[in-house]
Amino acid sequence: MINLASNLQIDATRLWSTIHDTAKFGGTPKGGVRRLTLSAEDKQVRDWFAAALKAAGCEVHVDALGNMFGLRKGRDMSKPPIGLGSHLDTQPTGGKFDGILGSLAALEVVRTLNDAGIETELPLCVANWTNEEGSRYAPAMMGSAAYVGEFTPQDILSRKDSDGVSVAEALDGIGYRGDSPLGTQKFSSFVELHIEQGPILEAENKTIGVVDSGQGVLWYDGRVAGFESHAGSTPMQLRRDALAALSEVVLAVERIATELGPNAVGTIGEAVIARPSRNVIPGEIAFTIDMRSADEAIMDALDKNLRSAAAEIAARRKVEIALDLVWRIAPTHFDARLVDAVQTAATELGYSHRRITSGAGHDSCNLNTVMPAAMIFVPCKDGVSHNELEDAKQADCGAGANVLLHTVLALAGVAK
Amino acid sequence: MINLASNLQIDATRLWSTIHDTAKFGGTPKGGVRRLTLSAEDKQVRDWFAAALKAAGCEVHVDALGNMFGLRKGRDMSKPPIGLGSHLDTQPTGGKFDGILGSLAALEVVRTLNDAGIETELPLCVANWTNEEGSRYAPAMMGSAAYVGEFTPQDILSRKDSDGVSVAEALDGIGYRGDSPLGTQKFSSFVELHIEQGPILEAENKTIGVVDSGQGVLWYDGRVAGFESHAGSTPMQLRRDALAALSEVVLAVERIATELGPNAVGTIGEAVIARPSRNVIPGEIAFTIDMRSADEAIMDALDKNLRSAAAEIAARRKVEIALDLVWRIAPTHFDARLVDAVQTAATELGYSHRRITSGAGHDSCNLNTVMPAAMIFVPCKDGVSHNELEDAKQADCGAGANVLLHTVLALAGVAK
Repeated sequence: MINLASNLQIDATRLWSTIHDTAKFGGTPKGGVRRLTLSAEDKQVRDWFAAALKAAGCEVHVDALGNMFGLRKGRDMSKPPIGLGSHLDTQPTGGKFDGILGSLAALEVVRTLNDAGIETELPLCVANWTNEEGSRYAPAMMGSAAYVGEFTPQDILSRKDSDGVSVAEALDGIGYRGDSPLGTQKFSSFVELHIEQGPILEAENKTIGVVDSGQGVLWYDGRVAGFESHAGSTPMQLRRDALAALSEVVLAVERIATELGPNAVGTIGEAVIARPSRNVIPGEIAFTIDMRSADEAIMDALDKNLRSAAAEIAARRKVEIALDLVWRIAPTHFDARLVDAVQTAATELGYSHRRITSGAGHDSCNLNTVMPAAMIFVPCKDGVSHNELEDAKQADCGAGANVLLHTVLALAGVAK
Repeated sequence: MINLASNLQIDATRLWSTIHDTAKFGGTPKGGVRRLTLSAEDKQVRDWFAAALKAAGCEVHVDALGNMFGLRKGRDMSKPPIGLGSHLDTQPTGGKFDGILGSLAALEVVRTLNDAGIETELPLCVANWTNEEGSRYAPAMMGSAAYVGEFTPQDILSRKDSDGVSVAEALDGIGYRGDSPLGTQKFSSFVELHIEQGPILEAENKTIGVVDSGQGVLWYDGRVAGFESHAGSTPMQLRRDALAALSEVVLAVERIATELGPNAVGTIGEAVIARPSRNVIPGEIAFTIDMRSADEAIMDALDKNLRSAAAEIAARRKVEIALDLVWRIAPTHFDARLVDAVQTAATELGYSHRRITSGAGHDSCNLNTVMPAAMIFVPCKDGVSHNELEDAKQADCGAGANVLLHTVLALAGVAK
């Protein structure tokens, strides 16, 4: 049994077919997927996933926020299962891999064990977390955040989408407000496979990212208030141009993150000029800032340097720059034993690999606050994600699923 | 008669009342005016203006594009009249003074001459030009541009607003498609009073701007194409951030215009990030540039330096920056004899004054291409225009109207 298990490989062709077959649920003409959480398309993939888990011998149950669990029994049912999985919802114009790879690879692990007739010592539990993406309902990673107690179920159930539909109504609408109270499905530990959503593995030609940390995040809402005036008749030295001031902030964010790098990033992703006109000097701009680091001390420095740069720019240009810190989450340090287990699996399987920090947030970052958790990354083309062009190689997806399989086997143990 | 004429003053209180009484046509709750060209509100003010001109003894006629003319006879009807006036249409959220001051001051000049029983040697002709603002129909300064032959009447009549209503339909709708063929109303010269729409006179505490030139304009449509990617998982050195690139372009435009100043300005008034998201590095931005100078050589330098800066930024940041020059108009050099006449009138009336360049375009810039033309500026509060907060002082409006009166008298001559 042990030799069989150590030589075991998932069926990369079956996994690849499953990924592409289920991409029809919300499939877009450009080859992406639009599967907003708790939508009709989400119900389609959930129904398919539940049926596939049941067909693979799992007991399926759903909790009060629609988080789905498929339990594969182990020899020792006195211990909580080893969790594996991710999410099946997508961005409005999302791809076929983000979250989906990790969920379907978890199913593939169960199928592979079934085919090989392997019983694990500890049970396994495949999970599909509700609303990881956060596009339809805030916050992102909603199901796992509530699972770990960051929000009450009542709070989450009352959240509304832009059409005024609450999470409770949406869950009822697709029949996924489950019977299991939130948090009753316990795990011994949790392992999540995901595409990197960044360019590092591809650039360094590595197959596996052994994720040892997740970045903490600083989110700001900002506003520049200058003075709107005529582009033709206002001399340069009498201007209080909000866009010129914002431009200095954009470049300051870039410089500050670069100086504090490589373990820091900073981005201005949104900037909207109020009442824009070709011949009017912008007087007011709303913008957002996203800064991240896996190191708390660097996060503090990002915040301090940003505020000091903004104050200097505002004073020199005689404009107001308001910065409102709307979200701060601490960095994630994944469980060292699990990270080692991932690295060992990658090494023994002969895949090139490196330690990596997750730039994005993931359900496993939430789960790691209440249980040992870890993640496995595989490369995606050009680092592109949240985009219909999102792509990954069959071989890399298969490699990631194999690392998931062997990490889970190492954690769960093979029944003697 | 000559002494009477030289001591003559317009009635500043009457002018001020006229400005505020007619502001009800399209008046907004915030004290501004919304009077889009050829709208119902424009018809109201046009009807009022025609009636007032007739009541002041003028013969009123309207040309094929709705330009309105009120002729006050002179002793010598063999010569074309001295023109005076401006426009009565406004921006969607415009003020009470832009264009309106010049039109109503022209009426006030006629009323003042009537009250004093003064006959001029040459006739006078008060004008209200159609669609100076360009908000409902492009181009701006439409009526005067077609009058001087820059566009055919057929071209202009077929232009449509955003609801698909043509200029011809709009003219017919308010009954202002007149009988006079375009361009048949000739002028010996034209003088226009206008608020400065800039901060210079106020900053220097001058009452009158003797406008000797108008800036030439360069308008570009621009686009930055970088690469959209995840704000958390894309290292700083692997980014192709379109907003960071645009920020350098914004600051380059500012620097280039400042270096070529004081006779140059440059502005980026519009910038729209495609698919903006808080945690996505901007991949594509559309923007516009407005650069101006009253000197052709400086306009050439603005264009050259802009293109060279954009190329350098694009190459260094590995993004594309496209610049499409969509409009270029030459600077205006107002007629020297008329400019001197304005300055003489201001001097003799004892008003503080300075030579000034018009930063904005005006109907008189068009008219100056086919006849001697000149302009008179008065200060407006904080240089604000195209805004409901637009404001000017009664004394300054009166001073401007007095300079208009005496410039016109000097050009038309008083009948012996």
